Amino acid sequence: MRKGRITIPTDENYVEGTKKIAELWGADAVRDCDGVKLPKNPRDIADKVYNVYFVDRGNHEWAKNNPDEWQHMFLMTPFVTATEKTVRVHLMDTFYDEQLKPDFSPAAVKHIEVIDRTTGQVHTDWVADEANGDVVIQGATPFHQYTVAFLGISLWHPVHMYNYITNDWDEPHHVMYDPYYPKTKKFIRENLRRWCDENPECNVVRFTTFLYMFSLVFNEKGKERNVDWFGYNMAVSPRMLDDFEKQYGYKMRAEYLVDQGYYNQTHRLPTKQYKDWMAFVENFVIETVKDLVKITHEKNKEAMMFLGDCWIGAEIFGERYAELGLDALVGSVGGGVTVRMLSDVEGVRYKEGRFLPYFFPDTFFEGNEENATRELCNNWITARRAMMRNPLDRIGFGGYLELAAKFPKFIKRVSEICDEFRYIYDTVKAQTPKNFAKVAVLNAWGKKRSWMCNMTAHELWYQPSYSYQGIYEALSGLPVEVQFINFDDVKAGRLGEFDTVINAGDAGTAWSGGEYWADEKVLTEVRKFVYNGGGFIGVGEPTALQREGKFFQLSDVLGVDKECGISLGEDKYNIQKQDGHFITRGIESPIDYGEDKKNIYALRGTNILDIAFSDRFTRKVNVGEVKMATNDYGKGRSFYITGLPYGAQNAKLLYRAILWTAGKEDMDNKSYCVNPLTEAHYYGDRYAVINNTAEKQTTDFYDINGSAQKLSLVPYEIKWIPA
Amino acid sequence: MRKGRITIPTDENYVEGTKKIAELWGADAVRDCDGVKLPKNPRDIADKVYNVYFVDRGNHEWAKNNPDEWQHMFLMTPFVTATEKTVRVHLMDTFYDEQLKPDFSPAAVKHIEVIDRTTGQVHTDWVADEANGDVVIQGATPFHQYTVAFLGISLWHPVHMYNYITNDWDEPHHVMYDPYYPKTKKFIRENLRRWCDENPECNVVRFTTFLYMFSLVFNEKGKERNVDWFGYNMAVSPRMLDDFEKQYGYKMRAEYLVDQGYYNQTHRLPTKQYKDWMAFVENFVIETVKDLVKITHEKNKEAMMFLGDCWIGAEIFGERYAELGLDALVGSVGGGVTVRMLSDVEGVRYKEGRFLPYFFPDTFFEGNEENATRELCNNWITARRAMMRNPLDRIGFGGYLELAAKFPKFIKRVSEICDEFRYIYDTVKAQTPKNFAKVAVLNAWGKKRSWMCNMTAHELWYQPSYSYQGIYEALSGLPVEVQFINFDDVKAGRLGEFDTVINAGDAGTAWSGGEYWADEKVLTEVRKFVYNGGGFIGVGEPTALQREGKFFQLSDVLGVDKECGISLGEDKYNIQKQDGHFITRGIESPIDYGEDKKNIYALRGTNILDIAFSDRFTRKVNVGEVKMATNDYGKGRSFYITGLPYGAQNAKLLYRAILWTAGKEDMDNKSYCVNPLTEAHYYGDRYAVINNTAEKQTTDFYDINGSAQKLSLVPYEIKWIPA
Repeated sequence: MRKGRITIPTDENYVEGTKKIAELWGADAVRDCDGVKLPKNPRDIADKVYNVYFVDRGNHEWAKNNPDEWQHMFLMTPFVTATEKTVRVHLMDTFYDEQLKPDFSPAAVKHIEVIDRTTGQVHTDWVADEANGDVVIQGATPFHQYTVAFLGISLWHPVHMYNYITNDWDEPHHVMYDPYYPKTKKFIRENLRRWCDENPECNVVRFTTFLYMFSLVFNEKGKERNVDWFGYNMAVSPRMLDDFEKQYGYKMRAEYLVDQGYYNQTHRLPTKQYKDWMAFVENFVIETVKDLVKITHEKNKEAMMFLGDCWIGAEIFGERYAELGLDALVGSVGGGVTVRMLSDVEGVRYKEGRFLPYFFPDTFFEGNEENATRELCNNWITARRAMMRNPLDRIGFGGYLELAAKFPKFIKRVSEICDEFRYIYDTVKAQTPKNFAKVAVLNAWGKKRSWMCNMTAHELWYQPSYSYQGIYEALSGLPVEVQFINFDDVKAGRLGEFDTVINAGDAGTAWSGGEYWADEKVLTEVRKFVYNGGGFIGVGEPTALQREGKFFQLSDVLGVDKECGISLGEDKYNIQKQDGHFITRGIESPIDYGEDKKNIYALRGTNILDIAFSDRFTRKVNVGEVKMATNDYGKGRSFYITGLPYGAQNAKLLYRAILWTAGKEDMDNKSYCVNPLTEAHYYGDRYAVINNTAEKQTTDFYDINGSAQKLSLVPYEIKWIPA
Repeated sequence: MRKGRITIPTDENYVEGTKKIAELWGADAVRDCDGVKLPKNPRDIADKVYNVYFVDRGNHEWAKNNPDEWQHMFLMTPFVTATEKTVRVHLMDTFYDEQLKPDFSPAAVKHIEVIDRTTGQVHTDWVADEANGDVVIQGATPFHQYTVAFLGISLWHPVHMYNYITNDWDEPHHVMYDPYYPKTKKFIRENLRRWCDENPECNVVRFTTFLYMFSLVFNEKGKERNVDWFGYNMAVSPRMLDDFEKQYGYKMRAEYLVDQGYYNQTHRLPTKQYKDWMAFVENFVIETVKDLVKITHEKNKEAMMFLGDCWIGAEIFGERYAELGLDALVGSVGGGVTVRMLSDVEGVRYKEGRFLPYFFPDTFFEGNEENATRELCNNWITARRAMMRNPLDRIGFGGYLELAAKFPKFIKRVSEICDEFRYIYDTVKAQTPKNFAKVAVLNAWGKKRSWMCNMTAHELWYQPSYSYQGIYEALSGLPVEVQFINFDDVKAGRLGEFDTVINAGDAGTAWSGGEYWADEKVLTEVRKFVYNGGGFIGVGEPTALQREGKFFQLSDVLGVDKECGISLGEDKYNIQKQDGHFITRGIESPIDYGEDKKNIYALRGTNILDIAFSDRFTRKVNVGEVKMATNDYGKGRSFYITGLPYGAQNAKLLYRAILWTAGKEDMDNKSYCVNPLTEAHYYGDRYAVINNTAEKQTTDFYDINGSAQKLSLVPYEIKWIPA
């Protein structure tokens, strides 16, 4: 087995142990880690030496001497109810005074916007009271509610703050300086040159990250208040606002950025103004980072981007991403989605995933080896599904290697995983993994948020999200080509490129599409596509918008709609579950609908695959809640399901739904495993049959010609079978 | 015990049996019943003799000779998808050809409206093809959907049709003739005079009912297709449409009546046009029925209105209802709500409820006496709660008395109920039942739909409704004054009349209020009311409208909002259930939230009474779904609950929520029963303590001075206790 493709953490106190583990795992790169230093001569241990580098923080002297160039953020106070004509709003009431302070300079105050949220109108009668940190609203209408949007000056980098508080560090706060301002613009370039010279042992600069943080705002108690891993409201400054107006010909109002307090979080339908702002920031970040990468290369080092922290503006699926000229992209991996979010990125030479568990004392304490190893295995088999389709170029771990070294079984299991990874990499990269259908995921973001749908804080679980995220997790390891498209793509006639389109999300979100479903062109393009033989898969509240007698605007295609309490008077007779559909063949355990959706009913002629009845019902009309249904529409087909959290069986269900809607039923005995807990991949010269569980599995496996064999798989096994 | 206040059915073949039961029950009225005739000399049996009378149907000769005056209805075809430029829509595809036929006369065709539902625009390029029963749409856009609204001619009264089909009758179809047309206008008056003369033994004309049916449309298989017990789309004709335009100055478009296919069902936010149409019909019905009542009186008979069938336009809570001069109102009773829907009506001398079970073979078959008696008892104790507050003047039964007579226990139980009813009537009417709070139910309909909220077909169970209907059922028997108000009442400053306001319903429905929650005046009036000490109770999706950063527009008052998938990035820390609140004191069984609502979260400072956690949750932020919460707002208070289906415990919970929000906590030991399955009523000179269950109950009972005693109640018992 060839050595390489593995990154490990180390520190100056664990040199010999590192060497042993590096050899065992085949590691060829070492990295530093928060709170530790790399050993001297790290290249004795590995070919590649990564060092964390901060572009816009960490130089305390620069920060201290240039307070006029500190970064900003746009914030909105909570709703304040007027009980008299004058309302005094203390801006910082719900914000953390160690993270930020309001900017009362004239350049910033002119961007303050007070809105009467009861009427929705801008309220212009107010004064700023810097001494008290207030905005005083005058001429208020009693019992109206008001909000104040204002620019805050960042006092502390929020990730540094989080680590500092969590780990009880004692060091100066990291302030963020803004390269949009002239002195800092120059400084960050010079600083990088100097740093490169001062760190000759480092040959990979691990940028953590570039210029602007994703939205991460703390409350007055120093706890997370708002988070949006995709948010741009910390990529803002008076100077940027002025330039934007010159460039785009209109004022970037505070409201466009604070967005009623929703802060344009990624679940919101993106407005034109927000998309303009994103483009404006993205252009600036790209021009700046291009320079930084050039400097890095001049210093004979590789430039690696960490996907996180200050990644705003460096949109990995943006049109200009390749211009950066980066060598590498690294991000943390929690499963198949996060693998594909990295591995599908184009315009960067290699991509690396940092796997779990992190070697921290919260996992690596005495007696926890079993759990640590299980977390490792679970993380790996989830991520592995995606590796089978499009592998990362490297994998790595973070934390304190010395801690992990105390768990020999864990160390051994990692070693096996490293070998398995390299075999997968060599095999899959050398061949072309065969795809059996081409799937489009349709939402308001399209390509820009590929594999990022329904995400809030990176990799964190949210109750309203997991029933949608399961779709993407399932897709990440299915033998189908996946592209993320938006409504402009639909209008540009791109649907014809696909076999099946998926639309999944809650009504009114960017994922479902909201107002886009009032667009005549969108509706007709999708209908035409399906009518002529295309497939359509809806999950949750697809195509949802209350309008013209429907809630699901494509209820005709989907065969289902949602009873929102205004059509109870219409009798619903189609409540009979039909047995024996292609999609559910072989799906034997109860289906997990996750959060589910209530009050879905079938239209006439729709084929109900599953329906639930209230145990209170007293008559057989207008009752029953459809969970899963199919519909024929012209030559095309649709499939609806209320929710699809990730699970091996649900992944199989989705694959069968894709095959059926795509009219490819013949593929259910070609490169196919019957047991839903196992999956097959076909690479032209061989197959991989994988066991996605910690238990032994048997399955009927069909090769590409439909010949069957019974296979038995040990826990986690991949069986490579020559074609 | 005084005889009287009881109506029984009878027929010519059961005279002697009727006499015996009439004496046993103390019946003083007999009525006829579908399919049977009254005995000769019915006044030998009872003082009052009711005869069914049909105003607009039943005279087959008139119907046959005046097909130009048959009634109409406005209908909309289903959505038809264009796949080419010409679309042929067969109007009757989903309608029942025995119920109606399209009206292709010029006077009707001019009201046909074709709408492109993909753009929402009226499509004017079409031709009517009478020979084929089609409308042919030309110049259609492929993959747009179209609907055709058209006037149908009624061929068969839908209740007659239903009974005819259900009971396999063999008689001519009842056609409905329209008194809006001149010949029929005259005829219905003459016909009533003649009928009165021909039926001297009848002294109560039981109008079943007046001029126009509620919406009841059948599908092509003769099954119910659309029903709305409140709907006006069968109260329409070309002549009415023409007159409306003259009178109101604008054309009553088809779309205003078919309403995207929702037919303005009572759950919809009523539009100005629909309210205009209702007023127009109501005015005509009142002028006409006034005449009929006058004729009835001239013939020395009483005029009784049956609340059902053709009751449209005779709005029992309408402003002009008293003008009719009716003697009596009768309706069926399924529980407390339907009692109060009758007993709270003003402007009619006496009101009667027809109780369950109906004496029909589906209940009265051999071996079913136990069940029949249980149904009787359950119906009675549910209705009785409302009787304790505002009793009906009479109760009655329907069906075939001879069938009931075969069940001696049943006969005996009815006899006991009749006695109990008369005692309640005499007591409650002689005293004033004391109310301890004044409650307003706020929705888009207000008084006009008092006790009718969330109803579709009268008394039928709908899954999305029962969790709201429980509120009204609970209220019907609580010692509180209840009024139903609308948003105009709020704007007119009427909130000050009440202690607590209830707003309950699904987002976007008439019950919650939809767009009304964007009205500045509404928002400020409610806030002011609560801030100054008023109470607010929200159920389900109160004040819901996505706007200006909120889903619940009064989230500030309620202390809760709904996560609709666009504010996941805002952390929700308030997830701690608080123990020991006034509202839940004594509520010991798990609370029944019915259909419930998902994703409700508490704002800062809100007091959570109940919250559910997903068993999948992985962290203690942004999780938990609030079920019940309270909030302080100025001097006022609010209570929120996700759903409140009817049950004795939920009725107690609602009462405690009313007391708490009204700031009347001291009332929980005044005229109060602690056991939630029992209730107390105070009449000044005495108390009634009632057992709402079929089991023995004990309870602590507090009199109005707070003195407690322990009471033991046999099943269904009312204990009358002197004050």
